[in-house]
Amino acid sequence: MPAVDVNQDLQHERSKCSFNQKEFTLWWVGGKDELDKKRFMENYYVNEPEFHDEVPLYYASHKELYEQTIRKATTIFTKVRKFLQEQGKYDAKNYVKYVDALLGTGVMKDSSPLRLHFVMFIPAIIGQGTPEQQAKWLDKALNCEILGTYAQTELGHGTFLRGLETTATFDERTDEIVLNSPTLTAYKWWPGSLGQTVNYCIVMAQLYSNGKCHGVHAFMVQVRDEDTHMPLPGLEIGDIGHKMGFKGVNNGFLGFKNYRIPRSNMLMRNAQLQRDGTYLKPVTPVLTYGTMVFVRVLIVRGMASDLAKSATIAVRYSSVRRQSVINPDQPEVQIIDHLTQQGKLLPQIAKAIALKLTAENLWKMYQETTSELNSGKLDRLPELHAIACCLKAVSTTDAAKGIEVCRLACGGHGYLSSANFMSFYTVAMAASTYEGENTVLLLQTARYLIKMWNQASKGKKLVPTVEYLAKFVGKPTKRQPWSESIPVIIAAFQTITANRLKQANARIEQRKRGGSTPEEATNLTALELVRVAELHGRGFVLQSTYEMVELACQTCSSELATVLRNLCKLVVYDEALKFSGDLLRFTTISETGLVQLQQKYETILAAIRPNAVGIVDAFDYPDYVLGSALGAFDGNVYQRLYDEALKSPLNQEPVNKTFELYLKPLMRSKL
Amino acid sequence: MPAVDVNQDLQHERSKCSFNQKEFTLWWVGGKDELDKKRFMENYYVNEPEFHDEVPLYYASHKELYEQTIRKATTIFTKVRKFLQEQGKYDAKNYVKYVDALLGTGVMKDSSPLRLHFVMFIPAIIGQGTPEQQAKWLDKALNCEILGTYAQTELGHGTFLRGLETTATFDERTDEIVLNSPTLTAYKWWPGSLGQTVNYCIVMAQLYSNGKCHGVHAFMVQVRDEDTHMPLPGLEIGDIGHKMGFKGVNNGFLGFKNYRIPRSNMLMRNAQLQRDGTYLKPVTPVLTYGTMVFVRVLIVRGMASDLAKSATIAVRYSSVRRQSVINPDQPEVQIIDHLTQQGKLLPQIAKAIALKLTAENLWKMYQETTSELNSGKLDRLPELHAIACCLKAVSTTDAAKGIEVCRLACGGHGYLSSANFMSFYTVAMAASTYEGENTVLLLQTARYLIKMWNQASKGKKLVPTVEYLAKFVGKPTKRQPWSESIPVIIAAFQTITANRLKQANARIEQRKRGGSTPEEATNLTALELVRVAELHGRGFVLQSTYEMVELACQTCSSELATVLRNLCKLVVYDEALKFSGDLLRFTTISETGLVQLQQKYETILAAIRPNAVGIVDAFDYPDYVLGSALGAFDGNVYQRLYDEALKSPLNQEPVNKTFELYLKPLMRSKL
Repeated sequence: MPAVDVNQDLQHERSKCSFNQKEFTLWWVGGKDELDKKRFMENYYVNEPEFHDEVPLYYASHKELYEQTIRKATTIFTKVRKFLQEQGKYDAKNYVKYVDALLGTGVMKDSSPLRLHFVMFIPAIIGQGTPEQQAKWLDKALNCEILGTYAQTELGHGTFLRGLETTATFDERTDEIVLNSPTLTAYKWWPGSLGQTVNYCIVMAQLYSNGKCHGVHAFMVQVRDEDTHMPLPGLEIGDIGHKMGFKGVNNGFLGFKNYRIPRSNMLMRNAQLQRDGTYLKPVTPVLTYGTMVFVRVLIVRGMASDLAKSATIAVRYSSVRRQSVINPDQPEVQIIDHLTQQGKLLPQIAKAIALKLTAENLWKMYQETTSELNSGKLDRLPELHAIACCLKAVSTTDAAKGIEVCRLACGGHGYLSSANFMSFYTVAMAASTYEGENTVLLLQTARYLIKMWNQASKGKKLVPTVEYLAKFVGKPTKRQPWSESIPVIIAAFQTITANRLKQANARIEQRKRGGSTPEEATNLTALELVRVAELHGRGFVLQSTYEMVELACQTCSSELATVLRNLCKLVVYDEALKFSGDLLRFTTISETGLVQLQQKYETILAAIRPNAVGIVDAFDYPDYVLGSALGAFDGNVYQRLYDEALKSPLNQEPVNKTFELYLKPLMRSKL
Repeated sequence: MPAVDVNQDLQHERSKCSFNQKEFTLWWVGGKDELDKKRFMENYYVNEPEFHDEVPLYYASHKELYEQTIRKATTIFTKVRKFLQEQGKYDAKNYVKYVDALLGTGVMKDSSPLRLHFVMFIPAIIGQGTPEQQAKWLDKALNCEILGTYAQTELGHGTFLRGLETTATFDERTDEIVLNSPTLTAYKWWPGSLGQTVNYCIVMAQLYSNGKCHGVHAFMVQVRDEDTHMPLPGLEIGDIGHKMGFKGVNNGFLGFKNYRIPRSNMLMRNAQLQRDGTYLKPVTPVLTYGTMVFVRVLIVRGMASDLAKSATIAVRYSSVRRQSVINPDQPEVQIIDHLTQQGKLLPQIAKAIALKLTAENLWKMYQETTSELNSGKLDRLPELHAIACCLKAVSTTDAAKGIEVCRLACGGHGYLSSANFMSFYTVAMAASTYEGENTVLLLQTARYLIKMWNQASKGKKLVPTVEYLAKFVGKPTKRQPWSESIPVIIAAFQTITANRLKQANARIEQRKRGGSTPEEATNLTALELVRVAELHGRGFVLQSTYEMVELACQTCSSELATVLRNLCKLVVYDEALKFSGDLLRFTTISETGLVQLQQKYETILAAIRPNAVGIVDAFDYPDYVLGSALGAFDGNVYQRLYDEALKSPLNQEPVNKTFELYLKPLMRSKL
């Protein structure tokens, strides 16, 4: 990275770094091999001018943005393929990895309309298609001869899968399946790439045969002509319109009117529909859990990285920006020297690291569980699912909040699109809703916790992530002895969770005795249940962070160990202070103890402050990834803001036509 | 409002309303006269087709959006003027009122580039110009013969006024003032309408004469030619680029290079610069406080209304949307029947009302204080300023959070621009930064509170808003006896504030004894101070809500009184539960007490639930104000979402050109 022309305050910050940044980066990315691969890839991207917009796409119209995104996405596809072939590194997996690595960066701020083809369409063919069906479509899809997506959500139906309205009715006469959208609310709505991009689509619909409904199944549906790209007759297809973010994704709608497909287009790896309309049920419905968990691991990891990028931007800007004096006779200070600014930003650095380590821990669990699955053991699947649900909710909530904290900490300039916080925010916010709405997911975790609580009451041994509950079952409520040690604070989160779970469970039982159905009782207790699930997730985040940091500290330098342990302390103290009410209820912490905790927190802020820039630098995000005028490595904030402003199409002419058209007439017509 | 074609679930909700909505609306808008005027105005707006976009502007490019906004703003100016003249109601104040009423509505989602002309430029001429200067510019400005704005913030300088870099140097030789931007960071940056719209600008710059700097003063500067609109030589002027929101405002930049204006263009109502360069100081620098407070009252009121609009949208949608079953054998329920949804939305209704009542209370204080000012009493100005600071911070924070809660509660569809939450969110979020960044404002309040605490220690009587502190000064810390009565909970907020203020003050003193300067000690205690100021503001919100509700209940029907008191309880319980840690520290509330408080909270949710739609209907926002497919009065959510999607320019042609240009080549070139 260039040593010249770097902002002096930023240079000074870097000179204060107390640890070896390379060592941090190697730990953060997962070793030398990973770092080399990452740098090689980044070096390639940064030197491909066609991957970078001359004029940022936020200046473009909705339609232009789509067109430019398609141009860029296909260019990237073609160039990356050629590059990998030349390097002798071409295979489908590596290809997707290279293309995907550009998402969530300044290069593909609005995501790509070709993404779902690889991450949903192809996996669905593999996962749900028979060998014959794979032979028919898989190669074509891998070669991009056909482009596809996956359509489940409908205009009137989201989370509740059984509520889907699209019908797929078997017509024995012609051996066809007839697709219909009986109402407007049955229209498929939201699938990415569906609007104008794809010509194939896997559609989820209620299967009917022999007068009976067999529930939701997947069907391969061609939606546009392969030569002309015209929508096929019997379909109504289009763009669902402008959104907060993901503006390049081309989310679409799709309505069916007696649209016929061959019976053989039903994906029949699991369930089957025979020639005479006989329906054969799938054997292992539980398997889809695995995919959901996998996606949620990716989400937690993505949240960590979006938050880390936002913190990088805000910390660098806060080191360059000078505003307000502390002592009246001194010059204006770097805004990071205001304690309030440290209180905003440093916890975001720590939280980003905590979420990353949590994702790694979850990934480990996922791998263990799927390898057990392959040998037929399903025991830990519900546990894995339960923890993944609440972690997805907690991580998306914290990341979105944290990104906004970073943005607001940059004052007015954070509001400019050239600061690029909005890309990260809209991505994190979307993740609060998609792949399971957060409240719905927390309730799933809560139901699992209630079940485990009741199993423990019956003396059953619990699986690892909920094992701590057993200590509290059937015991009188007792305050946990408080100390400021990190393991004790983490244990306090478990104590709080268990006690609140116990209370919620008691409320449910009380309501059932009062005449509520179990489901009504659960709904009436839902506010408490959501809180319990959140606490369970937060405890897991803290536990994962602590364990992974201690693991790293066994082999790393003492300088790095100090930094990592401080970051771990920060995230634990920060979280504990936010739950001070619960600490007072369920531990022996005193008024003095709380005041001391606040002081400890402030001491850690001061300890991390000199390394703030050092740490975000060591996250190793190149400028094109951050895509931010405020966050570039050189800290030339003001010049970059100015340069970005000059790209505005309004600045390409001295006088806009609206002067002659509207302003002048107004100014000449006396009021 | 139409009775036909209304969604049946919504109709059913309306049939449950237990109070007289007209009575609520009259209370909410401030009486029959106000309601008549409001309805008259709305009726006019809704019937002017040119005020409404055929294609929503979020589909437009940055440049097109500017052009369309200018078109619409000038059309509105011209038509409203004509209309008012025909009605015999034309005067400048009424004119501005009519034009301003369209801001923050679906009609002017991105605000207007002609707004600052009326709310900053003209008031500055009146407030800071001499009679001669007013004679020269005021009529021209009122007639829109010249269009202006107000330029203070610079690229490198915001909050800290003294840090501004732009220089205005008196040249005695020519009797001129020479404006310069000595660096890029000195460029004016952010002023609305400055980019391409205005031809005049009031510029704040450091005045130099006779070799001395006299601090920041205001200068009238022509920036574009009146005939050609070309930027004048010596100026660099343009658009600062794309932003999160306020996209129609045309925020601009302005750099000076030896740009000369006559000495007489310095606004000299207060300070004066004489022909020989002699500088005469202003007499009453304190007067500018008044304007700041006035703007902050408007902000609090605006936040109330943005939150009320968001709640209206989300509550109506949640009554129409059905998703997931509660009892397995029953159909999917209205999502507002999930307790978690009630826990999200109903507090937002209550908070919107609380903020509105707080704004009214603040307005009353403002009027009292300014009338005292006019008779020469300045005593209550610092008090007013301190409470306005923290209320601006609390209201913008809560409104922005609340709007996002409403949006997220609408699931995926809340993410669509046609839902219109983003307009409200970006406005509320901008208000966290402009007119005093929230943290900076909270620290100003905190410094005032510390000062008052120390005055009280010396036995001085305190002014009303901080009078409660006196009870705690010099007394040993004692827990306040807890009860669930609303006045006791409000008093608990004062107890918490006072105790935390006491602690913060002690920490500052301790740090000073340890060798810190007073300013360093304050900075090191800033996290606690910010919290204290926030609590002070929250206490004021609760107190205002309670008082104003009780006042209303003295004259209103018992049905309405029940509703208003429930809403007041909801906002108080909700806030109390969020500060449960503080309640445990500073009151005698027990574990059981906390559990009971949660139950009370849930009981109030259940009590408000049947009236949720009734209340948001009674806020009386017409559809064009909400501008939302999800929130229209008729509840035809899905048809409206679909209709809005069809307006997408991508849907105007069956195949986008990118198929032939990019997709087909990709699909034909085997990987």
